[in-house]
Amino acid sequence: MILDSIIVTPLKIIEVQEGDVFHILKKSDTGFLGFGECYFSSINKNAIKAWKRHKIMTMNLVVPVGQVKFTFFSDDLFNFKSITVGEDNYQRITIPPMVWFGFQGMSEGNSLILNISNILHDPDEVERIDADAIQYNWSNL
Amino acid sequence: MILDSIIVTPLKIIEVQEGDVFHILKKSDTGFLGFGECYFSSINKNAIKAWKRHKIMTMNLVVPVGQVKFTFFSDDLFNFKSITVGEDNYQRITIPPMVWFGFQGMSEGNSLILNISNILHDPDEVERIDADAIQYNWSNL
Repeated sequence: MILDSIIVTPLKIIEVQEGDVFHILKKSDTGFLGFGECYFSSINKNAIKAWKRHKIMTMNLVVPVGQVKFTFFSDDLFNFKSITVGEDNYQRITIPPMVWFGFQGMSEGNSLILNISNILHDPDEVERIDADAIQYNWSNL
Repeated sequence: MILDSIIVTPLKIIEVQEGDVFHILKKSDTGFLGFGECYFSSINKNAIKAWKRHKIMTMNLVVPVGQVKFTFFSDDLFNFKSITVGEDNYQRITIPPMVWFGFQGMSEGNSLILNISNILHDPDEVERIDADAIQYNWSNL
C-alpha cells in the first residue's frame, strides 16, 4: 500500500545553553536519496496547501517552527493518513514519489516547513488537484 | 585573504498567499560542495557561540527566523568581518574550511540557523577558542 512507503523518523534535539541543536538529515539516513535542493515554505494558521504529488521527487520534511498537519491519500481514495509534526512532535517525514499530500498550518502565526529534496524543482514532475476536489475534513483542530 | 573566501548570496523569496517559499540551496549553486548533513541550531537573544573553525567542512548557513550576527577573523587577528542576516536580510553565507567564526542572537526570542554541510559532523575536524580569548566587542546591538 502506497501510504506505507511514507517514513516518519523521530529526530534528536541536543540541549545547549546558548541554544539547542536540532537534527534534520544525514547522508547516511534511510530516506536520503541524494541532494537536489533545500528550501522552506511558510504556512499561515488554518491555511491549507493541497493537493500535490511528485512523480520523481522524494521529499524530506521537518517543521522547526509551529505545528503542521500533513494528510496523505491513496490513489483509490479509500485510505487517508495524517500526522501532525512540529516543535511539539519533532520528526522527519520522508514522502516518496507518487504519494498525494496536502498540509495545514495548525499553530498561531506562521509555521515553517523545511524540504530537502533529491532533485531540483521541476514543474513538469508535479501533479495537482484542487483542495476542494477531494472530500476531506481539514478543520478538526 | 582568507576572509574573501566567504560567499554571501541573496536568496529569492516567492510570495504565496497561504505562506511564502524561501530558497536556501540548490545543488547547482556556487558554494555547494556535496551534501553531508543538514541541521539547525537555535540561539537566544544576545547569546554568543564562539569561536570555532572547521578544518574540512564547508558550511552553508541561512537564518529563517530572527537575526544573527556572524563575525569572522583572519588567523593573524588583523582582520575581522561581520554580517547580520535573518528575516530582514535573507542571504546565504558559505563558510569554507579554515575560517574562524562566531555568532550572536540579535532579535527577541530565539533565532534559528540552518546549516547544510558537505560532510557529516566529526568532532575531530573542529577547532575551538574560548569566546573571551579573542578581543572582540560583540555588544554593539
